[in-house]
Amino acid sequence: MSTGEPRAEVLRALHRGRPADRPLVLPGPWDAASARTFEEAGFPALATPSAGIAASLGYEDGATPAEEMFAAVARIVRAVSVPVTADLEGGYGLSAAELVERVRETGAVGVNLEDGEGAGGLKDPGAHAEWLAEVRAAAGPGLFVNARVDTYLREGVADPAGDAVARARLYAEAGADCVYPIMAPAADLPGLRAALGDLPVNALSLPDGPSFAELGRLGATRVTFGPGLLFRSLSGLADLAAEVRAQ
Amino acid sequence: MSTGEPRAEVLRALHRGRPADRPLVLPGPWDAASARTFEEAGFPALATPSAGIAASLGYEDGATPAEEMFAAVARIVRAVSVPVTADLEGGYGLSAAELVERVRETGAVGVNLEDGEGAGGLKDPGAHAEWLAEVRAAAGPGLFVNARVDTYLREGVADPAGDAVARARLYAEAGADCVYPIMAPAADLPGLRAALGDLPVNALSLPDGPSFAELGRLGATRVTFGPGLLFRSLSGLADLAAEVRAQ
Repeated sequence: MSTGEPRAEVLRALHRGRPADRPLVLPGPWDAASARTFEEAGFPALATPSAGIAASLGYEDGATPAEEMFAAVARIVRAVSVPVTADLEGGYGLSAAELVERVRETGAVGVNLEDGEGAGGLKDPGAHAEWLAEVRAAAGPGLFVNARVDTYLREGVADPAGDAVARARLYAEAGADCVYPIMAPAADLPGLRAALGDLPVNALSLPDGPSFAELGRLGATRVTFGPGLLFRSLSGLADLAAEVRAQ
Repeated sequence: MSTGEPRAEVLRALHRGRPADRPLVLPGPWDAASARTFEEAGFPALATPSAGIAASLGYEDGATPAEEMFAAVARIVRAVSVPVTADLEGGYGLSAAELVERVRETGAVGVNLEDGEGAGGLKDPGAHAEWLAEVRAAAGPGLFVNARVDTYLREGVADPAGDAVARARLYAEAGADCVYPIMAPAADLPGLRAALGDLPVNALSLPDGPSFAELGRLGATRVTFGPGLLFRSLSGLADLAAEVRAQ
């Protein structure tokens, strides 16, 4: 995969050959203004969080209509010059070809696609891998695919680490560039890393969790925040609002 | 005007009978999440700033397409239960009837409409007053109309205070509920207040300007921020981004 959309290649290259203690840190913008702020701070790429965009648009997490999510991603892409990867949840029931076409229209050069389904379930891993392979076939190399693995997020998974490894291997064979065992405990990261060889792994940064360097040493290739930076920004805004209200 | 949309009546009532040192302070949300934050802080109404929404959507101030502005206002209205008044700039070239219909669709119960035109000009005051009268006729009492007077904002106005009073009187006769001589210096507020009797007057709060109580004593009935609170929030976000980047 050496050709394709130039910004997709930039995004892919950012995941390669990193020192263990310097994972790729991708902040999550929820609108054009936050995207510009993160770009100006020097981040080389951005990863939109679906829950952050949902909150900015006034939806519950998971309830954003596909049209509004694509429009919000397009506004963010238009506002910056760095590569943007978009969290598109479970893909909104679109066929792989439709999804890839809609992503192209936004200008995003990466996607995050999850294998969770409904309130607490998981998609069949083989069927999900097949769909990811169709996404890869439709997109060619010009799209960086982060395959989110939800085994730690869902209840009743007997062996979330083992299932995550099995799913991650299937998704990587299907063409995923990176896998994202969301909410994997820090203690599980070294085992996941060892089982997955040099496959890039995304870890979620939590406010009281390990530092970026620690996450990297434990096995993370890249670090994202979900809606965490929006929530921290809103906490600051609540303080400002209280100050204005008290004046 | 004692009947109409209940939230418009609430918004109108908030402008009446206030102690001089307690003007109505209306923060300006740019998305659903900021609107909820301001509502939770206890503000009884919100006033969307067109420049703040433009920045959140990635447009230069004044360049937001009407469709996107109305959609953003609708998302904000949907997110809160307090009355929302919307800054609709110069009205996007819509007829009064079209404008009122579009505002109704958003759920906003107030509008801010300016008499500036183009890069540095001002609309003919008589023609603008006629259009405001058409807005009032189309809306009935269920819409709170804040008529922004741009004489201080534009260059080459020989007597911005005198022109502001003349325009404000015309707009109030046309049915405006409140007038907004944006960027009027604090020193001019007492004269404007004296000339305008008990007509509600909106003042812009600036970071280094007078306190709300001072603005009220000088003559302001209500205080808004333009995009000021977004810019303060983005300043906090820039600090957070730099902190994350430095880690």
